[in-house]
Amino acid sequence: MLRPIFAEGRTYTVPPDADDAWVTRMWMLPPPARVVVAVRDGRVVGTAKTGPNQAGPGSHVATASFAVEAGEAGRGTGRALGEHVLALARADGYSAMQFNAVVATNTRAVALNAVVATNTRAVALWHSLGFATVGTVPDAFTLPDGTTTGLHVMHRYL
Amino acid sequence: MLRPIFAEGRTYTVPPDADDAWVTRMWMLPPPARVVVAVRDGRVVGTAKTGPNQAGPGSHVATASFAVEAGEAGRGTGRALGEHVLALARADGYSAMQFNAVVATNTRAVALNAVVATNTRAVALWHSLGFATVGTVPDAFTLPDGTTTGLHVMHRYL
Repeated sequence: MLRPIFAEGRTYTVPPDADDAWVTRMWMLPPPARVVVAVRDGRVVGTAKTGPNQAGPGSHVATASFAVEAGEAGRGTGRALGEHVLALARADGYSAMQFNAVVATNTRAVALNAVVATNTRAVALWHSLGFATVGTVPDAFTLPDGTTTGLHVMHRYL
Repeated sequence: MLRPIFAEGRTYTVPPDADDAWVTRMWMLPPPARVVVAVRDGRVVGTAKTGPNQAGPGSHVATASFAVEAGEAGRGTGRALGEHVLALARADGYSAMQFNAVVATNTRAVALNAVVATNTRAVALWHSLGFATVGTVPDAFTLPDGTTTGLHVMHRYL
């Protein structure tokens, strides 16, 4: 489910040709991390993982990653995963959640009336779930057409 | 050299009791990362590492970490390592450098006239070497006294 999303190269800092071993190592993290799936009609259509963002003195802040199949857009699957993961992290005692690298909307693509504004839907979802953009690292993500866009650092208290 | 710095618990999101295996795995990264040391009178008194901050579409941005023995403060060792690592990353073709978790000055400690304002010297050094603070994740670092301070995300183009 994850490989086509990574292969598209628009949402994750993962090599587009990452193989199963790479994806498994990156996503199937050991405890205390948690990995969950969203199932529709008996099929996995989305997944998320959450765990400590940093070790030691930073381990009270969680991070999380989300991926939903393209066909699920607009059906509430991302929101359901987001709400579930926030509840899990809160129950696990984390005091906040931080995203390190949320691909920003490519303002140039929007200006050119591109079909898809990169990750616009995801950023809007995180805002609606209470996340604030702490800052945006400029030009930190290379899109498939070779242009760059920013990576948001997002945060909310739990 | 690194373990006493991590054990102090004031500058790195590393467990204070991290053992040699943990520290080696974290610091001695394989290529394309690079690890360097600063030597004074035949003894290692500082070290730094640099490599890609993210994979795939984020791999054009480097990150780096630095550690200098307490006795080296004010002797230019941190600056020498910083300038050297910036030159290495530039030569390796990275377009920018990003720090993900620079411990912010604890404003409460300063207000209380504490002896050491956490990491103040390091933050000032990065600013003088051209880094800007993109954002600060609030309360993301727990100091040894149980209070929290922020973690800066810092960035400069190369």
